[in-house]
Amino acid sequence: MQPERLNIGLIGTGTIGRVHAENLAYRVPGAALAWVADVNPTAVREVAGRFQVPHATTDYHEVLADPDVDAVVICSSTHTHARITGEAAEAGKHIFCEKPIDYSLPRIDEALRLVEKKGVKLQVGFNRRFDPNFARVRQAVASGEIGEPHLIHIVSRDPEPPTPEYVKTSGGIFMDMTIHDFDMARYLVGSEVVEIYAGGGVRIDPEIGAAGDLDTVLLLLKFADGTLGTIDNSEKAAYGYDQRVEVFGSQGAVQIGNNYPNAAVLSTARSIHRDRPLYFFIERYADSYIAEMRSFIDSVANDRPVLVTGEDARFPVVMGLAARKSYDENRPVRLSEIG
Amino acid sequence: MQPERLNIGLIGTGTIGRVHAENLAYRVPGAALAWVADVNPTAVREVAGRFQVPHATTDYHEVLADPDVDAVVICSSTHTHARITGEAAEAGKHIFCEKPIDYSLPRIDEALRLVEKKGVKLQVGFNRRFDPNFARVRQAVASGEIGEPHLIHIVSRDPEPPTPEYVKTSGGIFMDMTIHDFDMARYLVGSEVVEIYAGGGVRIDPEIGAAGDLDTVLLLLKFADGTLGTIDNSEKAAYGYDQRVEVFGSQGAVQIGNNYPNAAVLSTARSIHRDRPLYFFIERYADSYIAEMRSFIDSVANDRPVLVTGEDARFPVVMGLAARKSYDENRPVRLSEIG
Amino acid sequence: MQPERLNIGLIGTGTIGRVHAENLAYRVPGAALAWVADVNPTAVREVAGRFQVPHATTDYHEVLADPDVDAVVICSSTHTHARITGEAAEAGKHIFCEKPIDYSLPRIDEALRLVEKKGVKLQVGFNRRFDPNFARVRQAVASGEIGEPHLIHIVSRDPEPPTPEYVKTSGGIFMDMTIHDFDMARYLVGSEVVEIYAGGGVRIDPEIGAAGDLDTVLLLLKFADGTLGTIDNSEKAAYGYDQRVEVFGSQGAVQIGNNYPNAAVLSTARSIHRDRPLYFFIERYADSYIAEMRSFIDSVANDRPVLVTGEDARFPVVMGLAARKSYDENRPVRLSEIG
Amino acid sequence: MQPERLNIGLIGTGTIGRVHAENLAYRVPGAALAWVADVNPTAVREVAGRFQVPHATTDYHEVLADPDVDAVVICSSTHTHARITGEAAEAGKHIFCEKPIDYSLPRIDEALRLVEKKGVKLQVGFNRRFDPNFARVRQAVASGEIGEPHLIHIVSRDPEPPTPEYVKTSGGIFMDMTIHDFDMARYLVGSEVVEIYAGGGVRIDPEIGAAGDLDTVLLLLKFADGTLGTIDNSEKAAYGYDQRVEVFGSQGAVQIGNNYPNAAVLSTARSIHRDRPLYFFIERYADSYIAEMRSFIDSVANDRPVLVTGEDARFPVVMGLAARKSYDENRPVRLSEIG
Repeated sequence: MQPERLNIGLIGTGTIGRVHAENLAYRVPGAALAWVADVNPTAVREVAGRFQVPHATTDYHEVLADPDVDAVVICSSTHTHARITGEAAEAGKHIFCEKPIDYSLPRIDEALRLVEKKGVKLQVGFNRRFDPNFARVRQAVASGEIGEPHLIHIVSRDPEPPTPEYVKTSGGIFMDMTIHDFDMARYLVGSEVVEIYAGGGVRIDPEIGAAGDLDTVLLLLKFADGTLGTIDNSEKAAYGYDQRVEVFGSQGAVQIGNNYPNAAVLSTARSIHRDRPLYFFIERYADSYIAEMRSFIDSVANDRPVLVTGEDARFPVVMGLAARKSYDENRPVRLSEIG
Repeated sequence: MQPERLNIGLIGTGTIGRVHAENLAYRVPGAALAWVADVNPTAVREVAGRFQVPHATTDYHEVLADPDVDAVVICSSTHTHARITGEAAEAGKHIFCEKPIDYSLPRIDEALRLVEKKGVKLQVGFNRRFDPNFARVRQAVASGEIGEPHLIHIVSRDPEPPTPEYVKTSGGIFMDMTIHDFDMARYLVGSEVVEIYAGGGVRIDPEIGAAGDLDTVLLLLKFADGTLGTIDNSEKAAYGYDQRVEVFGSQGAVQIGNNYPNAAVLSTARSIHRDRPLYFFIERYADSYIAEMRSFIDSVANDRPVLVTGEDARFPVVMGLAARKSYDENRPVRLSEIG
Repeated sequence: MQPERLNIGLIGTGTIGRVHAENLAYRVPGAALAWVADVNPTAVREVAGRFQVPHATTDYHEVLADPDVDAVVICSSTHTHARITGEAAEAGKHIFCEKPIDYSLPRIDEALRLVEKKGVKLQVGFNRRFDPNFARVRQAVASGEIGEPHLIHIVSRDPEPPTPEYVKTSGGIFMDMTIHDFDMARYLVGSEVVEIYAGGGVRIDPEIGAAGDLDTVLLLLKFADGTLGTIDNSEKAAYGYDQRVEVFGSQGAVQIGNNYPNAAVLSTARSIHRDRPLYFFIERYADSYIAEMRSFIDSVANDRPVLVTGEDARFPVVMGLAARKSYDENRPVRLSEIG
Repeated sequence: MQPERLNIGLIGTGTIGRVHAENLAYRVPGAALAWVADVNPTAVREVAGRFQVPHATTDYHEVLADPDVDAVVICSSTHTHARITGEAAEAGKHIFCEKPIDYSLPRIDEALRLVEKKGVKLQVGFNRRFDPNFARVRQAVASGEIGEPHLIHIVSRDPEPPTPEYVKTSGGIFMDMTIHDFDMARYLVGSEVVEIYAGGGVRIDPEIGAAGDLDTVLLLLKFADGTLGTIDNSEKAAYGYDQRVEVFGSQGAVQIGNNYPNAAVLSTARSIHRDRPLYFFIERYADSYIAEMRSFIDSVANDRPVLVTGEDARFPVVMGLAARKSYDENRPVRLSEIG
């Protein structure tokens, strides 16, 4: 006899939706992918066929209305996250929602209120917490291996900038890209950020600037425990996806380098070299997407607390708002100014 | 409508059999794991249950007799490989067989004869060819990136020695452990080994010596194209599984390091350090097992040549026999002396 | 016949004075160490004996009065640098002065005025410019190897904090420790810093705080060309002296790691590890001290411009004053506010 | 008052002679370079001038005849080493002799006999023992950090092959190049080699083959303590001088990588790369030449045993003869067959 499997409805079949669909279909033993929904009928049909999903729809309300669905995985456009999260909560479904829930704190708060009222579980898609490199950094800090944290540096650079069209609805670099680093900052240090000072510029694509956004930013963070930190984002690193962190503490330091497609080093008359890092988040964080979904399914199946909570979703949005305000006013901004 | 999937029967549910079972069940899209067979009724039931396999048996002949089975994956004890390969060929099944097919050349030749007579496909389980590190080395050689090969070094050390019981039936270190390195040597250089000189000793466990085997060996290989090489095997490296290769050529060199559970470097008052490499072959070569099975299924489904042939299975056995003879007689042995 | 050698007078025989004395005695072919001066008679006698220096004195005015002295190397206490520089200029001697010339801009300006008036050469002791690692970073930027610079990170951490006594007269961490990093920032980027925001704290030794200083600082720099940067200083890294830089540009990045006493990697049951970096500046920058002195002697002997000028001495002091002001007022400070 | 300095006569001012001359002149505090001798009058004059040496001659007998000379450093052509060593011993001079003393065991034995008879000190120029990397490997073995040695690999490759003219008088690759590795093998393991099997070929320059020599060799060594080892030599590595060692033992392993001109890593659209290693022995082993000479001077001045003895000079020659015999006869050769 087989163990009971949870029926999952996936809403949104874009890039990250397909990653979750494949993982739910093949790599998360306790889950059965029962529904896929997307406003695009071609996309939803294609995904349902590829992963043998029984039900497909262009209207996610069908998913929420199915009493056999235990949980939903929300991967739709960001501006729909808060609304669907609220509706799913009202429908009594457990929720995995991609980050961020929203750019508006009132809308986040309303969604979190409904989640709490209905007592459903909500996990937010900060997948890096499930990556072995970041997890090892957290372990080094939490275990005291490096003593008390004093300084943290986060480098997070993309191989290609977003399109100007994407930028117009992305919420801006702080909300779209830095948000992962905000989560890492508080997760890795284990203390809350209390003040942010943000520098930034348009160095890669003038159209990003024309759209009112930045493509290169550098932030200085102050934490409640006295730790100081930086986040460095560039939307285009010529050598590819660059995801590094260093935490320095009273007893030592821990650093993570990038992940590579192979461990080969070539030595030639030109130089000693190796291939570039794994291309982008899909390749780099493949395992973390599996691990976060397994963790979510485990939390639902066994009624355990989720590892990334609604508060974890809200805090980075506050940080993003503070960062933008700091940049606009060229002064350090206390998070308490934001709300 | 779903694409047709090949029905696979898995014979043998030991350590490596379970790896293949899980991959066939979840990670090889074109395959359906239809049967598992093992002489141990508890083991076969457990594996069938875990991976939702429709049919389970303690008699692999049932698998061969099922007309719906397209191919078999042979993971049983080594001494049964050649016999089951021959029977599977007679039954018209395509065959994936774990290495080595046998330690006896006549038995290998008989199995290969039946495979050829029946025109079925046979792929042998030299999984390292499907590992990104070794593949990158091969690419560097084959593409001319490092020029003509002059020297090759293969280091292959296990984290734990086999038990004395295992040693008694393993065929000896050259046949059981070095055999992978023999395959890598000829694959990476792209030329055949013509002579072997083998040194060896018992440095780790006297019981291995009492069983007539060696636990530490060092071989010097000569290739047809003039390349010289070494293979270094130890059955116990204190720091874990060590799988490295270097090929040096007229235009440069390529080296592969080990794979690690994370990319974190810790700096403390004691040292600058990182965690030990991935524990053993199950962890280190996880992806290569998936890739080799996908490749096999693809070869069968699309009638393409397999990437590891019967000849590739036979040659390393010749090398193993030559190595042992060299050790016993303390002289370089031509492979042509073996047959 | 021997080539003419320049007669050098060394003033100040503390830690760095002895480094220069030994280099001038043995490793700078065009120099003859003719005088050593120090207020401490024991120290000056000891140094004169060890390096076979013909003349020794406790009064540096004797050195300046010797018409055979071509140049002086000033390694005395920082508060005397500006005064002796001025006096040496008046005496027509070429000058190598340890950094910083002073903490007071008016005193620096007066010294530079005298240097200019007398037309003597003045080189300041920013030795890191002569270090192969930093030089390679500069080359990567200057040659366009990494495109236009966008971001720079400087990590500079000491193995041991200064004594509280030292702190009282050091001018503070920005003037004493960060000053090297200020020089590197503008040298490596090739653009001037225009604004500084400084965070800091006392995390290592409360007595340093009691003395009015900081032991852990993190600065965000804005450059005239749009580059953004950070400097991270800690006065105590458990694992030793940590001197790293990364410059990220439109076409790539360049990073330097630390220098080690050996290139050995140990793999044991505990970890994969290497020995800690070279202990402190004397060991780490040994070669750069030789190279800067050779460069100075070459500039004097062949009437070439020095590679580290009076302006290079002044600018970092302005940055240090801005950093302290930023920390005190918790706001970004334009360098134009300082003067 | 100055400490007494030893008067040194340097015989032979070729490449390595000039290295020793500069070190004796400037970097070995206890030594005074009193004489230089070379059959080439231009060379000897040039060196004497550059390093301010009081006496220069084209006849080294003048050096030996000077009663003020305490020790000689023999850097002349290899075929003169044994004769001059003997003559210097007869003259009562302590001796530093470049490796090898000779290619002929009887000539070596005669020289060592004279050294012993006269009770002078003799140190041989196996400089790698004084290199921090190799020293760290030895320390790891000697201290038990890696347990009992089981396997050793030595890689030693040159950036450029010798000229065919040089090859004619070099004694062959085993005597000229491998000899350093023979010394390292026995030094690092701390046990004597008892048997050698050598493979080799001409892969780089047919003229080297025409001169009767090899340019690419691979040796398998057996040690008295059961350790097995390899030495890999190529006379031309496209990427430069390659000097690596690994010792594997019962408790772990130690490896040394190459030394580089800087610690910079460049990341570009092409690859992640660093500059090639230090060019050749002059650059790579600069510090070891200083350290070996300081050690020799210390041994003479303070009557301490030298760290590289006459036996250390003789043993590698035996190994070289065994290696050539093994190659010629294609069989493992016991060192006891050589004498």
